[in-house]
Amino acid sequence: MPRGAQVIYPKDLGPILVLADVFPGARVLESGIGSGALTMTLLRAIGPTGHVTGYEIRSDFADRARRNIEGFLGPDQPLDIEVRDAYDGFDVDDLDRVLLDLPEPWRVVKHAEAALRPGGILLAYLPTIGQVTRLREELASSAFGMIDTLEVLERHWHVDGQSVRPDHRMVAHTGFLTHARLLVPGE
Amino acid sequence: MPRGAQVIYPKDLGPILVLADVFPGARVLESGIGSGALTMTLLRAIGPTGHVTGYEIRSDFADRARRNIEGFLGPDQPLDIEVRDAYDGFDVDDLDRVLLDLPEPWRVVKHAEAALRPGGILLAYLPTIGQVTRLREELASSAFGMIDTLEVLERHWHVDGQSVRPDHRMVAHTGFLTHARLLVPGE
Amino acid sequence: MPRGAQVIYPKDLGPILVLADVFPGARVLESGIGSGALTMTLLRAIGPTGHVTGYEIRSDFADRARRNIEGFLGPDQPLDIEVRDAYDGFDVDDLDRVLLDLPEPWRVVKHAEAALRPGGILLAYLPTIGQVTRLREELASSAFGMIDTLEVLERHWHVDGQSVRPDHRMVAHTGFLTHARLLVPGE
Amino acid sequence: MPRGAQVIYPKDLGPILVLADVFPGARVLESGIGSGALTMTLLRAIGPTGHVTGYEIRSDFADRARRNIEGFLGPDQPLDIEVRDAYDGFDVDDLDRVLLDLPEPWRVVKHAEAALRPGGILLAYLPTIGQVTRLREELASSAFGMIDTLEVLERHWHVDGQSVRPDHRMVAHTGFLTHARLLVPGE
Repeated sequence: MPRGAQVIYPKDLGPILVLADVFPGARVLESGIGSGALTMTLLRAIGPTGHVTGYEIRSDFADRARRNIEGFLGPDQPLDIEVRDAYDGFDVDDLDRVLLDLPEPWRVVKHAEAALRPGGILLAYLPTIGQVTRLREELASSAFGMIDTLEVLERHWHVDGQSVRPDHRMVAHTGFLTHARLLVPGE
Repeated sequence: MPRGAQVIYPKDLGPILVLADVFPGARVLESGIGSGALTMTLLRAIGPTGHVTGYEIRSDFADRARRNIEGFLGPDQPLDIEVRDAYDGFDVDDLDRVLLDLPEPWRVVKHAEAALRPGGILLAYLPTIGQVTRLREELASSAFGMIDTLEVLERHWHVDGQSVRPDHRMVAHTGFLTHARLLVPGE
Repeated sequence: MPRGAQVIYPKDLGPILVLADVFPGARVLESGIGSGALTMTLLRAIGPTGHVTGYEIRSDFADRARRNIEGFLGPDQPLDIEVRDAYDGFDVDDLDRVLLDLPEPWRVVKHAEAALRPGGILLAYLPTIGQVTRLREELASSAFGMIDTLEVLERHWHVDGQSVRPDHRMVAHTGFLTHARLLVPGE
Repeated sequence: MPRGAQVIYPKDLGPILVLADVFPGARVLESGIGSGALTMTLLRAIGPTGHVTGYEIRSDFADRARRNIEGFLGPDQPLDIEVRDAYDGFDVDDLDRVLLDLPEPWRVVKHAEAALRPGGILLAYLPTIGQVTRLREELASSAFGMIDTLEVLERHWHVDGQSVRPDHRMVAHTGFLTHARLLVPGE
């Protein structure tokens, strides 16, 4: 599966914000950032007092994301984009949230445990159910709890005078969302 | 809404058979028959001892359906196709099942009451929710009971080695199925 | 997973009939039969000229299914129920359809290949996606083709005067349906 | 339909934030506020530089919402709660967003046109499709454009070792989300 082949759809952005409880002022790590679509939603949600660190293994993707984000939101965003492989470890800590759009997020569960504050949230976006199963195994033996996996479906309606019905076709699948909270010791 | 503009999709055929309880030997009225796709499924389900009467208001549709059905199932089917407007009344009675794919099925509820055996089932396929609402009003003041409306969604999966996930797109809407049973007096 | 712990829901019966193309006169093997709910639907669909062989590993389930079926449909059905483990092989052949509600249907793919007529259909009902993945691996290296896996969702509507909306809750999952056709040599 | 009988579910909160594009610093009118669940999500999203005006027709609901919000988020929120009937008009203007959880939101479309900045967004949460149809009629002859109606479905998964499948039941319906943007003159 090539990295960055996927895009996080608008239908998933809102649920990601709420499931990961991204709040104004939050310190967030996002890896990988792909085209920067989720990054822009995160910057909107954290506001000027928060901070996003974005890892991206491909320098061409990182450059494109930087251009996209500056073009839409302007310069001087509270954002650092690093060309870096998340599997090798994180170089930030004291994080509130870790958002993962990686093919093998189970390889960074230990890094996220170390880098998140107690009560912090990890959320992973995964296209296939086999990846979900593997991540859930890793989380089950980690310091994370309150683990949940779900899919979000949007059904749009055609409303035109008396012709009121669901649209004939819909997006049936983008990715599975798995989220978990780093338990406070003793919780 | 032009008559016959719609097709009943394969995903709805099985539920129609079960919701309308179409059985070998059943006497069925279908109106309108469109291209004959549901008609062929009905003929398969009722077998040689049953009978289907098909009304179709457009003679070109009736001719095409006859050709389709003969082509797939051969001649000598237990089937009469009549070029006829169901709103004007039914010329058959003692029916087990009435299946409706008409834009205004509320106009034939009285005809179905008269033509069905007690315990017989009416089922209507309707694209818009406004049509469902209008039909349900008519059924609510009729001799029919056990009334239910539902939609059927099929979600297909992509399974290719380790890549196991729902397909990216799906059919989100075809029609609403409303079914009701002619109550036996005293029931 | 205990055998027979699951029931095939009404929402799946219609799609099973259509996906497996169960027709009047068909010779069908069903294994296991559990409480006999699918068996009764099959008997209804195949009519008096068809035949169902039902395997059930638990004799108490077989007895209960026999009583259920006689109670609803009467005696003298075209049905043999055998207390038998399908994994050990089939003792029937020249079948049109093989319907499987077993925890490990991949263990009978070879038996189904031998017992089905060319063009015959195998359909398996499975609760978990891991079972689907395992079955699909087996089918991929078999003589079966036209392989598909899907789920069926029914969404019921509340229609009461001006209050028209989907019901608040629904059945979200029962089982995955996987079906395949035994290819005619050279197909 | 009694006011306040409904609750906006967590599954709708994220999509509401994204569809209504609620950003840090936004000026938002919410009517009615019910128990304050959406209000708290809005306060989280707009941060200390934004502002929420909450209308609620029932003073007991307004009191309860004030207590809920103070209990969870602390005092000194950028929030005014008024006991007021939105149908009588708005007493605020220069708004970025108007979020409606009212039984007859079509009665405030004119008020929202007057109170929103150009480019501002109206979003309404409605339980029944008849209400959606009525609102869409009003919006169709208003200064709003880019009008869309959708439902959000969440499907949770059971993941426990090799037992990986969707949960057996799910919430099938809460409300329909309709959103529209106040067009800039000449747009």
